[in-house]
Amino acid sequence: MQHFPLMISSILQYAATAHGDREIVSRPVDEPLWRYNYAALAERAGRAANMIRQLGIGPGDFVSTLAWNTHRHYELFFAVPGAGAVLHTGNPRLSDEQIAYTINHAGSSVLMFERSFADLVQRLRPQLTQIRHFIMLADGDLPDMPGIELLGYEQLLAQEESLQDWPSFDENAGAILCYTSGTTSNPKGVLYSHRSIVLHAMASGLSSAFNFSAFDCIMPCSSLYHCTAWGVPFAAAINGAKFVLPGDKMDGESLQELIQSEGVTFSGGVPTIWTMYLEHLERTGEDAGKLTDLIIGGSAVPRAMAEKFQSKYGVAVRQLWGMTETSPLGVVATPTPKLAELGEDAVNEVIWTRQGRLQYGIELKVVDEQGERLPADGKSAGILMVRGPWTVERYFRNEDSALDADGWFDTGDIATLDEHGFMRITDRTKDVIKSGGEWVSSIDIENAAVSCPGVRLAAVIGVEHDKWGERPLLIVEPYPDAEVTMETMQEHLESRIVKWWMPDDMVIDVVPLTATGKIDKKVLRERYYTYLVERK
Amino acid sequence: MQHFPLMISSILQYAATAHGDREIVSRPVDEPLWRYNYAALAERAGRAANMIRQLGIGPGDFVSTLAWNTHRHYELFFAVPGAGAVLHTGNPRLSDEQIAYTINHAGSSVLMFERSFADLVQRLRPQLTQIRHFIMLADGDLPDMPGIELLGYEQLLAQEESLQDWPSFDENAGAILCYTSGTTSNPKGVLYSHRSIVLHAMASGLSSAFNFSAFDCIMPCSSLYHCTAWGVPFAAAINGAKFVLPGDKMDGESLQELIQSEGVTFSGGVPTIWTMYLEHLERTGEDAGKLTDLIIGGSAVPRAMAEKFQSKYGVAVRQLWGMTETSPLGVVATPTPKLAELGEDAVNEVIWTRQGRLQYGIELKVVDEQGERLPADGKSAGILMVRGPWTVERYFRNEDSALDADGWFDTGDIATLDEHGFMRITDRTKDVIKSGGEWVSSIDIENAAVSCPGVRLAAVIGVEHDKWGERPLLIVEPYPDAEVTMETMQEHLESRIVKWWMPDDMVIDVVPLTATGKIDKKVLRERYYTYLVERK
Repeated sequence: MQHFPLMISSILQYAATAHGDREIVSRPVDEPLWRYNYAALAERAGRAANMIRQLGIGPGDFVSTLAWNTHRHYELFFAVPGAGAVLHTGNPRLSDEQIAYTINHAGSSVLMFERSFADLVQRLRPQLTQIRHFIMLADGDLPDMPGIELLGYEQLLAQEESLQDWPSFDENAGAILCYTSGTTSNPKGVLYSHRSIVLHAMASGLSSAFNFSAFDCIMPCSSLYHCTAWGVPFAAAINGAKFVLPGDKMDGESLQELIQSEGVTFSGGVPTIWTMYLEHLERTGEDAGKLTDLIIGGSAVPRAMAEKFQSKYGVAVRQLWGMTETSPLGVVATPTPKLAELGEDAVNEVIWTRQGRLQYGIELKVVDEQGERLPADGKSAGILMVRGPWTVERYFRNEDSALDADGWFDTGDIATLDEHGFMRITDRTKDVIKSGGEWVSSIDIENAAVSCPGVRLAAVIGVEHDKWGERPLLIVEPYPDAEVTMETMQEHLESRIVKWWMPDDMVIDVVPLTATGKIDKKVLRERYYTYLVERK
Repeated sequence: MQHFPLMISSILQYAATAHGDREIVSRPVDEPLWRYNYAALAERAGRAANMIRQLGIGPGDFVSTLAWNTHRHYELFFAVPGAGAVLHTGNPRLSDEQIAYTINHAGSSVLMFERSFADLVQRLRPQLTQIRHFIMLADGDLPDMPGIELLGYEQLLAQEESLQDWPSFDENAGAILCYTSGTTSNPKGVLYSHRSIVLHAMASGLSSAFNFSAFDCIMPCSSLYHCTAWGVPFAAAINGAKFVLPGDKMDGESLQELIQSEGVTFSGGVPTIWTMYLEHLERTGEDAGKLTDLIIGGSAVPRAMAEKFQSKYGVAVRQLWGMTETSPLGVVATPTPKLAELGEDAVNEVIWTRQGRLQYGIELKVVDEQGERLPADGKSAGILMVRGPWTVERYFRNEDSALDADGWFDTGDIATLDEHGFMRITDRTKDVIKSGGEWVSSIDIENAAVSCPGVRLAAVIGVEHDKWGERPLLIVEPYPDAEVTMETMQEHLESRIVKWWMPDDMVIDVVPLTATGKIDKKVLRERYYTYLVERK
């Protein structure tokens, strides 16, 4: 067989040749809607690759971005790795300090950023000592940025011819670098290779996962800077689907605009975004257009939301679990024939309460604290371990492997596996509540609490307790004008959770979220860890 | 990212874990229907792997089979490569001499064969000097075979424990060896690697190709011994589909039995099989059950057959083009949105008259005799060249690369590419008719001729001509009791082909077929090459 390396450029070339006139629509910040196709994307990405080479960037070099879900950012997904360099997609939701840390840690010599990040870049400038070129991903006049010799992306592009023959090299070469959100320490980098990205793009399009076809219109609402928007930009191209980039506007109204006008059939993102979208539909009485599939990940999907999407709007909601370290495809909650035999209610129960089922290319196992495999009975919760060709081996610029002796990666999640091959996260290892030596699942309590009328967000943390070591404390953020009392909550939870898991108390507070939209339990623990002992 | 080699065993392990109870049904020769599932397949394949090791077979060794589409053969697809050896799937449709040649050329030390090949093996015995173990893929009593110390597959399996941890090794190691049918010379071997088979299994399940899901029930009617039944056995497992193995009975009634009783949704094979199946449906008045998708390849699909399947039985017929050298996925004729916009008639016209559209993982180009790329206009016919990670690099035990300097493989086909990304074969290079220095497409004439009432098979060859060098001669095999005259045929062809392509004459004869069901033009040329000159 031919030694044919799996190159990201082959995805672009395929899309341009086989689906050249399939549309790509982008909503850049403060610019009109942009509309082109895969052939034109390849043409511009080819020019961007030559632009990067002109700047002296090649194999071994790194290019950082601070950018939204826009077509220019998408072009760089192909142009930078295609030119043999590594694209570091900076996460603007991190703190200034962390953003500067990641750009410096990556060792980037070029920073490309959207106009809306001019102030941020100006602030970071003194710390970005390795950056040789600052390029604004913009057209037209550039702002004056003191101390920065600013270049314009469109101006540079206009000077270049398009690269015709993309180079072929070692498929294990680094391609895209993403950092974890790092709530407890400095963000850690995960370097995706050409090989891992191509394999992930092939596997994620299969019917067990995203089930993409050329007839789909796909709009990723997870961020391009956060584990490559789940690899959807590559999977969309490899399947020749229409592709819609929503820019920076993820509110319900802005998403609805594109869903309706572009005929979006598939989207995905964190629950917060889809809660807002559902609120928009409920408020306006509009329908969801051609939208049929929503993949939701990042944190557990509220069952009530999934149910409403399905029953009222005909949109199938499927959970996804993954992490930066798994590129991120881990499991997706798509039905199986065995499940379907049990009837619609049973299907929904599993699909809406499990993170998803096993996918080809990523092996899962659940082990106890001694490393012994636990049975796949849907009850035995243990440490979730994974391995496969798109799972991290070691963190970027780290000398130590991130794996155990048998090549498994500890996800930091506590989970169960069931007889249908479905996995359910019950906790994060670091959020685990150990009460009287037994584990309490904070996520199970949160899921039950959030379905209580009036509750917008719910968080459960383990707090200090004289007798039991730790006990669960419930923090509730109600909807504006809604009232939630301890009595109604207790009544609501009683039939829904294990009896001894009942939180010892409930406080009303704003639930803090991390840069990626997850509940920031670290902040809550700092705030409330001694709450029960002090209350006495 | 982890260095995780792509192993065939990972497909089996995935199917056994994620779809363990999904059924596999097999119709062994002269034995009752066999029914088990992916978990049991993995268990038995694991025992077969240990059996192979017990025989002293491992890396560097070859195992040949002479077997039908049965579960035992399927087990060997995983067991032999899984144990690090290479499985050579012998083609029983070749001549005795060629079968012996391929087994000896492979250098196999084990031959596993079905009971129905006992006579064949007995005949070949004197030539098979390298075979150390003869194993009959059978249960129960074994026949007496003089000069052969015969072992029984089931007896050997019963003595083994199942292999639990499949070994991991270089993904570029050889896994399965297939020989081309070799009509002009000795068959040539193509050695598939673990990597090429896994990539092919992932790509062929995508919606642009076979569009498999766990809900499918898949029955391959192409032979497991002929380019691994198009890789379907692996693609079915990777998608967790129900799998039906029809044994050696490919007649209409036998297929209908399984299609009806097992709920087959997807099948594939050469046109001859599906012509017989359609004749069965027409004769009995039965319907096609749950069958929705037929992929037909090996030679061009008669349009009338596709039309009848679609309009009368609701079965979508899609062509596939590929060859042993391409594992075999080349193109598949699935619709695209751009095509769909043109309406149903236009879709059918393209789907039924083109071999298929571009797939990710295999690049196509059409070049003229000077090697220059021809435009994708649907008209410019040229030499079809391919490359990609599951395309041959060199033939087995051959020192020379089979590729040109840029890594392209000459398919030996003449084809066009059109603006929708669809490819159409117009001829084989060796069947090309050069009349007055211009190419005549024998396939176009055959397709037109076979749609003439009364015609069962039609072949066109170039025969010697004093003035034009060569001219087309039409050979027609009518249906029993049907009559086809030169006059009716001329009338039929007039509006359907280029005027100067009109065959100079037509003869009525049985159209000979090769071992893989293709028209054997070599035989026809030997018989008729001087027909026109001698007729004068």
